[in-house]
Amino acid sequence: MAKKIKKVVTIGGGTGSFMLLSGLKNYPIELSAIVSMADDGGSTGILRDELGVLPPGDVRQCLAALSGASDIMRTLMTYRFEEGGLKGHNFGNLLLSALEKITGNFSAGVTEAAKILNIKGEVIPVADKEVNLFIELKNGKLIKGENEVRHNFEIKKAGIKKSFLKPIVKANKKAVQKILEADLIVIGPGDYYGSIMPNFLVQGISEALRNTKAVVVFNCNLVNRKGQTDNFTLDDYANLVNEQIGKERIDFVTFNTKEPGKNLIKKYEEESMLVDFGEEKDQKRTYRIIKTDLLSDKKVRYSKADAIAATRAFIRHDSEKLARVLMVILELGKYEGIINEIV
Amino acid sequence: MAKKIKKVVTIGGGTGSFMLLSGLKNYPIELSAIVSMADDGGSTGILRDELGVLPPGDVRQCLAALSGASDIMRTLMTYRFEEGGLKGHNFGNLLLSALEKITGNFSAGVTEAAKILNIKGEVIPVADKEVNLFIELKNGKLIKGENEVRHNFEIKKAGIKKSFLKPIVKANKKAVQKILEADLIVIGPGDYYGSIMPNFLVQGISEALRNTKAVVVFNCNLVNRKGQTDNFTLDDYANLVNEQIGKERIDFVTFNTKEPGKNLIKKYEEESMLVDFGEEKDQKRTYRIIKTDLLSDKKVRYSKADAIAATRAFIRHDSEKLARVLMVILELGKYEGIINEIV
Repeated sequence: MAKKIKKVVTIGGGTGSFMLLSGLKNYPIELSAIVSMADDGGSTGILRDELGVLPPGDVRQCLAALSGASDIMRTLMTYRFEEGGLKGHNFGNLLLSALEKITGNFSAGVTEAAKILNIKGEVIPVADKEVNLFIELKNGKLIKGENEVRHNFEIKKAGIKKSFLKPIVKANKKAVQKILEADLIVIGPGDYYGSIMPNFLVQGISEALRNTKAVVVFNCNLVNRKGQTDNFTLDDYANLVNEQIGKERIDFVTFNTKEPGKNLIKKYEEESMLVDFGEEKDQKRTYRIIKTDLLSDKKVRYSKADAIAATRAFIRHDSEKLARVLMVILELGKYEGIINEIV
Repeated sequence: MAKKIKKVVTIGGGTGSFMLLSGLKNYPIELSAIVSMADDGGSTGILRDELGVLPPGDVRQCLAALSGASDIMRTLMTYRFEEGGLKGHNFGNLLLSALEKITGNFSAGVTEAAKILNIKGEVIPVADKEVNLFIELKNGKLIKGENEVRHNFEIKKAGIKKSFLKPIVKANKKAVQKILEADLIVIGPGDYYGSIMPNFLVQGISEALRNTKAVVVFNCNLVNRKGQTDNFTLDDYANLVNEQIGKERIDFVTFNTKEPGKNLIKKYEEESMLVDFGEEKDQKRTYRIIKTDLLSDKKVRYSKADAIAATRAFIRHDSEKLARVLMVILELGKYEGIINEIV
C-alpha cells in the first residue's frame, strides 16, 4: 500500500517563510503555508493605501518560494523596480494586486497566481479581510500597524499591555481546517511581533492549534530584535508562542548551534543579539529541543531598492538544513525520548 | 508529403496588430510579428523616461494577442491600474520592463515574456535600440516623438517635408531575415504615421521589402485620422506605403465594404472620416483590391484608466473576418486574375 502523504502546515510571514518553504517544497509532503495579512510597510503599504488591495507582500514571498515555474518567473516575483515612480515596488506585489483587482477578491487572486506560478502546495492568507495590527504598551502608547511595530524600539522596555487586530477578523476557514488536519505544524522563524504574532491574533487560529493533534514545532529565531526581544532566550520565545496559543502546545523547538562568522555578527549593533539557549538544567520544559547546525553559509544580498534592507537579517537559517530536521521530526512524530542533539 | 508550413510576417504596431494577430494565430502558419519601437506615450512613455527601458507597449499588445496562456494571463497583459501612483500603468508593460531589467536587454526580455505567455509565433521588435520619431512639416515645425505625432492635427494641412528616426537605427537582423523568407507580408491596419511608418524608417526594412518574393498585403484603414489623413482614399494610403518602401510593392489591398452603424459613426467628429474606396475606373492600380465585409460587430470598451481611450478607434476590423481573407490570399499567391470582391 502506498504510504499516506503527510500534511505539513507552516505559520508565519516575511523572509522566514520564504526560507522555510524553499526547503520544505523539495519533500513529498502536502504543504500549506498560512500567511500573516497585517503587512503595511514598503511596496505593500503603498498598494494597500493607493489601490485598496489586501497586503500582498507576505503571500508573494510564499508563492515565490513554492513556485515550480521557470527561474525567470521566480526572479520576477522578487524583482524590485529601482527608479522613477515605480521605485521600491515589487513586481510580485503588482502581480497579486492586479489579480485581486481582476478577480474581485484577494483569495481568488492568490489562487490564480498559484496557477501562473505552478506552485507546490497551497498558500493560504490567514484572513480574507484587511487587518491592522495594534500593540498597546504599558506606558500608554499605542503602536499602529505592522510597519510601526517592526520599527518600534521600546516594546521590550515598556512592556506590552495588549496586542490586537482591528477590525477583529475570523480566520480563513481553510486555514483552520488545514491546522486541524495537519500531521506537522511549523511556526516561524520570523520577526516575532511583526510576522508570527499577527497570525495568532486572528480569531480561530489559536483555538485550532489547541485542538489539532499535529506535532507542533517552533523554529527559534537566530537573532534578537533590538528594542523588542533583547536578551531573549529560546525559552522566552517558546513561552510567548505558547501563551498566545493558550496552551503549552509546542512539542519541539529547533535551535541553531553553529556560531556565525564574526563579520556577520559585526553587522549587528550589539554582539549580544544572538539568541541564547538559556539555562540547560533549571528549565522544566514542556517541549523538546533539537540543537543542530541550522546556519546558512550563503551571503545575503539585498536590492538597492529594498527600502527596508537595513532592518533585514544577515544571519539566517539554511533552508535545506532546517527542512531536513523538520522531516526527521515528521518521521518521529510525538517522540517521547530525549533528543537534544542531531549532528 | 506534409504540406510546407507557410511563413506570414506582420508589420505594424498598436491595437491594429493586436486585432490582426488575434485572428491569424488560429491558422497553421509560421507567424512573425514585426513591431514598431517608437512608442513614447502613456504608460510606455513613463517607463521609457523613468526606467530607461525600451518602449514595451506595442510589443506587449502583440504578445497578448499571440498568447496561448490562460485567459487570466492574457487579461493581465492588458490590465491597467486605475488608482494611485500606478494609475494608467499597464501590467504587461511592467512585466516587459522588469524582464528587460532582469535580462539586461529588451530582446532577451521579450523572449522570456514569450515563454511565460506561451505565445504562438514570434514577436520581433523592429529595432533593438530606443528610437524617437520626428516629423518635419513644410511650415518648418518639428513634431517630436510618436505621442506628439499621434496628437498633431496639422500634418495634413501643412504637409510633411521629412520624417525620420533619431538616432538612425538598423533593423533587427531577424526582422530582415523574416521579411526575406516570408510567403506573405501583412502591413497594417494601424494609425499610419504613429504605427505603420516608423517601421519603414528603420534602416533595412524597406530594402528587405523591395527584395522579398513574398506576397505583400496592405490592410487599408477603416477610418481617417483628423488632421493627418483627412479625406484619404484607399489609394492614398497604398501610395504612401509604396512610396515609403520605394517600389510599387503592394500586391493586394483589403478594403471593408460593410457600413458601420450610425451610432458608431456618430462617435467621430466628422462623418466623412470613413475611408473612401476612391474612383473605380480612373485608377491605374498596381495592386488588386479585395472588397468584403471586414467590420467588427463587437462593442469596443475601454478602461477608465486608459488615458488615450478617447483617441482610439470605435470602428474596427473583425480579426476573424480579416484573417480568413488573408488566408485566401496566402493560398492564391500572386494571383494575376481580377478579384474585386469576395462575399
